[in-house]
Amino acid sequence: MTYIIGHQKPDLDTVVSSVATQYLFDQKEGFGHVGAQPVLAGTHNEETSFVFEKFGVKIPPVLVNEQLLPGDSFVLVDHNEKSQRFDTIANDAIIEIIDHHPIELSTNAIFVTVKPWGSTASIIYFLMKQNNVTPPQEIAGLMLSAILSDTVGFRSSTTTQNDKDFVTELAHIAEINDVEAYIFELFKVKSNVTHLSPQQIVTKDYKKFNMSGKQVLINQVETVEQSKLVAQKAELTSAMRDVKQLEGVEYIFCAISDVLAVNTKMLYSNENERRILEEAFDVAPIEDAVFDIGPRLSRKNEFVPPIQMAIKQLDLE
Amino acid sequence: MTYIIGHQKPDLDTVVSSVATQYLFDQKEGFGHVGAQPVLAGTHNEETSFVFEKFGVKIPPVLVNEQLLPGDSFVLVDHNEKSQRFDTIANDAIIEIIDHHPIELSTNAIFVTVKPWGSTASIIYFLMKQNNVTPPQEIAGLMLSAILSDTVGFRSSTTTQNDKDFVTELAHIAEINDVEAYIFELFKVKSNVTHLSPQQIVTKDYKKFNMSGKQVLINQVETVEQSKLVAQKAELTSAMRDVKQLEGVEYIFCAISDVLAVNTKMLYSNENERRILEEAFDVAPIEDAVFDIGPRLSRKNEFVPPIQMAIKQLDLE
Repeated sequence: MTYIIGHQKPDLDTVVSSVATQYLFDQKEGFGHVGAQPVLAGTHNEETSFVFEKFGVKIPPVLVNEQLLPGDSFVLVDHNEKSQRFDTIANDAIIEIIDHHPIELSTNAIFVTVKPWGSTASIIYFLMKQNNVTPPQEIAGLMLSAILSDTVGFRSSTTTQNDKDFVTELAHIAEINDVEAYIFELFKVKSNVTHLSPQQIVTKDYKKFNMSGKQVLINQVETVEQSKLVAQKAELTSAMRDVKQLEGVEYIFCAISDVLAVNTKMLYSNENERRILEEAFDVAPIEDAVFDIGPRLSRKNEFVPPIQMAIKQLDLE
Repeated sequence: MTYIIGHQKPDLDTVVSSVATQYLFDQKEGFGHVGAQPVLAGTHNEETSFVFEKFGVKIPPVLVNEQLLPGDSFVLVDHNEKSQRFDTIANDAIIEIIDHHPIELSTNAIFVTVKPWGSTASIIYFLMKQNNVTPPQEIAGLMLSAILSDTVGFRSSTTTQNDKDFVTELAHIAEINDVEAYIFELFKVKSNVTHLSPQQIVTKDYKKFNMSGKQVLINQVETVEQSKLVAQKAELTSAMRDVKQLEGVEYIFCAISDVLAVNTKMLYSNENERRILEEAFDVAPIEDAVFDIGPRLSRKNEFVPPIQMAIKQLDLE
């Protein structure tokens, strides 16, 4: 059996890529993979459930080691590096790769198509076009969603003109008239936190740092419903104070980033943290417990350096 | 400047690939490399001179380090591994790769097209077809020659149906009616040894081996004029005896391989070598100093093991 498989933390682009690649292979014997089966290397996320349900397509099953046989071969989509691969894929069992990531590869001469575009789905649509294959409405819908998801609705710096052009073409096939409205719908699902407790929200995606001898926790929530979350500031800042004790850190910050509007609001839980943010971003709180730090989205590049500098300069107790 | 460059020991496929890629890039702005210049990473061979002269195309110049500027970028054709690259190409200066070799690569996400076909020229013709580009007669002639050269006139085990189909199409464009006759013409040039002395012929492509404590030299000459060379056996075996002394080896063998007819005749220079070949290949000499060892072409797989075994078993003085 030939399996079409994505990486071990399947996001929407990975899952869609395996399904769209199967469609392409089955239409064109020339690829030599008619009958290849899409499989996942791990559990899919909520966004993937939503999109596949919306377009009425079944999500491929997770591959289990026990079903593998000697001689099975693999088409890798949306990844190429060994560290991202399903555990038991031998190097010489890989027969084709379609990907948009940096290349870290050592294999025989096999079919490899890598392009530095915003999503693997864009590359697969490009291959479809080259081979005069038009995806049916539901596959077009999946591919469009994957491109929008991986490029953060064209806001990611990885976005190319191809990604944009292909979404226009795929939207026509999928009969999606208002792409911006669909981007909002998609990211609402992608960033849905309504099922999470305040404590889960303020630790959703956090990193700890040592800054001038102080332990600092910076959490980031990506959302398209920023104001709804900021309105819960009382519960969230209370949870932040609990987390500080549990995690044994001095300072805690919770960034609530609107990925589509490109804006971050930063929550703090006490006076010292307020002083740090004021010093770091040179603005006053817009209301109690809340700073608006403007069009910043990157924790690594835009949150950490100014906070680090502020802590160094303030020399707080 | 963007350079289109092959590997450091340029053969015909490498040189043709850089020229054909330039043609493709200049026709299609979409590749983003209009104005890229083909260059060589080393000196071209006689076969390349012959083919470029035949089709009236200028051979690209050899790149020299002194002409490189900061910001220059590279499209690699017919190679990808670091060991084969022009010395001073930095990893992040590589912007695209088109190749048919095993992959040994670590870069950013860039454009990569690798296919396990018989030649890089086949992949470039495939890209031309996908982009509705038809090469002009002289470029078609170069590409056809490169495919035939790299696949040893379709006799190499790396040959695919694509290589064959593309040669048929390119022959039509290049107005080459008798492909088999052209293969013979090409390999006559490729394997031309008329300018070599007998001693140069018997050491043209040799390897030394230690077999049961004896130093053994096995030379191979690939040719399409086998009988002409075998007819010079007196001069050649005399040269073999000289080389044995010069190189300090016990035994010497000279394989004269007709790569198109797929046959090897093996020359020996004394009685012990005759006994070794008789034992190794289980046939008698067809005439004094000459064995016909049949449809064998691979020194590594088909000459060395039986000779090694024979030397071990005979236990000669």
